Amino acid sequence: MTEEPLALVCGAGQFPLAVADAVAASGRSVFLVGVRGAADPAIARYPHGWVGMGRLGRLLKLVKGAGAKDIAFVGAVPRPAFSLDFIPDLRFLKLMFGIIGSGDNRMLTHFAAAIEQEGMTVRGVHEIAPGLMLPAGPLGRHMPSPEAVKAAALGFEVLNALGPYDIGQSAIVADQRVVAIEAAEGTDLMLARIADLRASGKLKADAARSVLVKTPKRGQDLRLDTPAIGVETVQRARTAGLAGIAVAAGEVMTPDIAALISAADETGLFVLGVERKK
Amino acid sequence: MTEEPLALVCGAGQFPLAVADAVAASGRSVFLVGVRGAADPAIARYPHGWVGMGRLGRLLKLVKGAGAKDIAFVGAVPRPAFSLDFIPDLRFLKLMFGIIGSGDNRMLTHFAAAIEQEGMTVRGVHEIAPGLMLPAGPLGRHMPSPEAVKAAALGFEVLNALGPYDIGQSAIVADQRVVAIEAAEGTDLMLARIADLRASGKLKADAARSVLVKTPKRGQDLRLDTPAIGVETVQRARTAGLAGIAVAAGEVMTPDIAALISAADETGLFVLGVERKK
Repeated sequence: MTEEPLALVCGAGQFPLAVADAVAASGRSVFLVGVRGAADPAIARYPHGWVGMGRLGRLLKLVKGAGAKDIAFVGAVPRPAFSLDFIPDLRFLKLMFGIIGSGDNRMLTHFAAAIEQEGMTVRGVHEIAPGLMLPAGPLGRHMPSPEAVKAAALGFEVLNALGPYDIGQSAIVADQRVVAIEAAEGTDLMLARIADLRASGKLKADAARSVLVKTPKRGQDLRLDTPAIGVETVQRARTAGLAGIAVAAGEVMTPDIAALISAADETGLFVLGVERKK
Repeated sequence: MTEEPLALVCGAGQFPLAVADAVAASGRSVFLVGVRGAADPAIARYPHGWVGMGRLGRLLKLVKGAGAKDIAFVGAVPRPAFSLDFIPDLRFLKLMFGIIGSGDNRMLTHFAAAIEQEGMTVRGVHEIAPGLMLPAGPLGRHMPSPEAVKAAALGFEVLNALGPYDIGQSAIVADQRVVAIEAAEGTDLMLARIADLRASGKLKADAARSVLVKTPKRGQDLRLDTPAIGVETVQRARTAGLAGIAVAAGEVMTPDIAALISAADETGLFVLGVERKK
């Protein structure tokens, strides 16, 4: 039985190739489409093509030409700005006009619907490379304290409360107090902020009871926007004086689980997958 | 009819003297207690005393000695850390042991209850100097656009949703998307973060639809922790590329309303008081 290849649209960072490797290792062929200015040139080790931001027509032509019916999107792509680098085609413009003013979630849902109208099926990392999703339970050798587990629970609760507002991919809880909530700045800048507040003495919470919580937003379409942590997240969490990281089990990816565990073990942090109430 | 003086415990910043001036102007005498290391030495223009952080016994003795029955707390006081500057007395320690691990709201409520057990009545700025609270409606000559009013409504809604978690004094909404939520960092650092995201091109929302929303947390005891904005807030909001500031009417103070209006008029920002649903 020959299966058609999976088309993988690659944004920035190391995640696209990690996903490509995992899919290829599972025995399925891949066709990579690099987003120009974002994707790693190393995608060239697989059959591939390149596409500019906003060239939706060309993207679909490439993917269909490769015989793919399933398509996945991995890695960050800069929000479109009208500059010389960004020459959208008619199909993209039509799509964008339909979704102006939407939040991230709704925008991505529109985008997925437009792709599927072309006869493609949009797949998430959790479907095509489930081995990259963090499982339930503790990873590595450092276990969370009961206080840290309680802090994580509070973090999940507050992020869940933010679901209707299309924000809340991560938060930091210290001593049972929510000390940071991520919105537009992203997880890395949020961690840096807590590191600064600690360094300046403005935040004096006990590190042993301080936890980063990371989860998809409620209603987030995992197919187009998979939350991810990696070795750098562990290092930033360490600098922010946290005891560990709690993620929604099965809903947050990491490009290299062995590297993540090593980093956690070395820095003394726990990494905990928590089953979310649906 | 002689009224006993109001005791005003003064933390850092310009708010304590602004409140003292407003109370004195209303014809009531004041007795100021400066928190050492925090309060402005200029409090010496009123009858006053000084007290170290955590010296609750001495504080009560001073205040009672001045014949005051009403007491108010204005201005930030650093969170206590056990250092050479901080030698708590037995009464303070007893209080602290009762409230360890509480959130800000609960801690302050405990604190107020302890003061009131001594026969004092704790008063808020809204009671002793209501003229310093921002009223409902627009202030100054710049009016919010309908989009800005809508953005403000979203901001109030998301902050209200955070009430159960003892966070949410402010948020920034841009193009109907919540781009920042304040937790431990404070309003100023949150505004600086949005200014940075704009400067680096990571946030491209339309300034005309970008609003800072400031309100007490749900359940926040206004007597001990009055949200405040001032001329600097207007300037920081301008740097963050916002169209204006919306506050919960009657629940947010400013030390000098004329100066606030001048700053808003000069920078082109609106300042809007919004009646919150209770």
